[in-house]
Amino acid sequence: MNSTIELLKSHRSIRKFTDQPLSRERLETLIEAGQAAATSSHVQAYTVIHVKNPTNRETIAELAGGQSYVATGGAFLLFCADMKRPTEAAERTGARVVRGMTEQLLVASVDTALMAQNVAIAAESEGLGICYIGGVRNNPQQISDLLGLPDHVFPVFGMCLGYPAHDPDVKPRLPVAAILKEDTYSDDRELVEDFDETMRAYYQSRKGGPKDTNWSQNLTPLFDTKLRPHMREFLVKRGFEMK
Amino acid sequence: MNSTIELLKSHRSIRKFTDQPLSRERLETLIEAGQAAATSSHVQAYTVIHVKNPTNRETIAELAGGQSYVATGGAFLLFCADMKRPTEAAERTGARVVRGMTEQLLVASVDTALMAQNVAIAAESEGLGICYIGGVRNNPQQISDLLGLPDHVFPVFGMCLGYPAHDPDVKPRLPVAAILKEDTYSDDRELVEDFDETMRAYYQSRKGGPKDTNWSQNLTPLFDTKLRPHMREFLVKRGFEMK
Repeated sequence: MNSTIELLKSHRSIRKFTDQPLSRERLETLIEAGQAAATSSHVQAYTVIHVKNPTNRETIAELAGGQSYVATGGAFLLFCADMKRPTEAAERTGARVVRGMTEQLLVASVDTALMAQNVAIAAESEGLGICYIGGVRNNPQQISDLLGLPDHVFPVFGMCLGYPAHDPDVKPRLPVAAILKEDTYSDDRELVEDFDETMRAYYQSRKGGPKDTNWSQNLTPLFDTKLRPHMREFLVKRGFEMK
Repeated sequence: MNSTIELLKSHRSIRKFTDQPLSRERLETLIEAGQAAATSSHVQAYTVIHVKNPTNRETIAELAGGQSYVATGGAFLLFCADMKRPTEAAERTGARVVRGMTEQLLVASVDTALMAQNVAIAAESEGLGICYIGGVRNNPQQISDLLGLPDHVFPVFGMCLGYPAHDPDVKPRLPVAAILKEDTYSDDRELVEDFDETMRAYYQSRKGGPKDTNWSQNLTPLFDTKLRPHMREFLVKRGFEMK
């Protein structure tokens, strides 16, 4: 295993940071590494807001479900899918632009994620820790208003970055035999049941304190309610009509 | 700049590969590195199909818009968003599962992309080249039928991997000043115009042969038509109703 693969496999979310901020220069290096990721048809359908204003960071920490490290880490970045820049660029060449296609939502979301994952890896390669904040989708409209996001731009997730002030365990993942299938989709229920045992053992011995649960049980609150039911209306309002 | 950031910044899509195939063991190493990426609430909403059957690879190469390297590279992987596994796991614990939320489509697409980008970086760190194949969304139903993808699973993109047999240029990206904004969204039209000049110069001198165009002009065919207009109906049919 080479050192890059070792780095990738050592990822865990960091949620406690020292006070040391990240310089603009440092962030630019990370974002440039992010931009080097593949992008669908070179569209680069993303924008990153570096939220420096302390009051706004506190507001976003609350809006994201009370995640205090959004306000206190070295930096907080909001990763946005951005279809405004490329569609307006095309319009300036005289194109009659069609917006709101479902495919455009996928392109922009995937572009943003590929880019952010490069940022995460670049940060971790520099000894920083990171945590994705999907909780920004709890209140995407309020966050968009706060940061002046225009139509055709929406927050996909945030990321806290900084110097780690704790050392959590690496969380196990599903067996590779479940994820990597040969030629056709196949049932993997037995592997999931094995993984439930792995996760039960992990939760009983983890540094963060024991918990009596497993993977399948943990998923229940995600799926037994309408998860973020405002997302459809929010996206439509912002110009992602999913046509 | 450390060696990982150098690796990230050296990415370019590889579309010509030697005949050397990738072993299952090698692929498992890459997928395990992929799985180490962050995943929303640990849901791991992805499955990867390693398409080995040569006839199916040729069919997918055609269905993806005549991309021959899908059939000829060291390996072809289809990255699928998978909400079947986690929702069925939750159901087995007795949860009454709600499916088809827009948010679930986002979670699964982003999870798949974060994971795939780790696979891409792991592969490149081992001297392999990769190319994402968004073209699988040209004919997602046919590809789903070919590989027996069940409901609640859909192909987000493919990836060709193998030993590079050419050495293309690294393509420029938008200026970081356009992508990384401070505190609020701001206009970046002038930076886009500068970038159009950068891209014009790139296209005139690139190894692949000169082309008289720029970034904005290149985007026109993406946006002046209904891009992959079947995606909405396809996703709804497969259980991603975007409610």
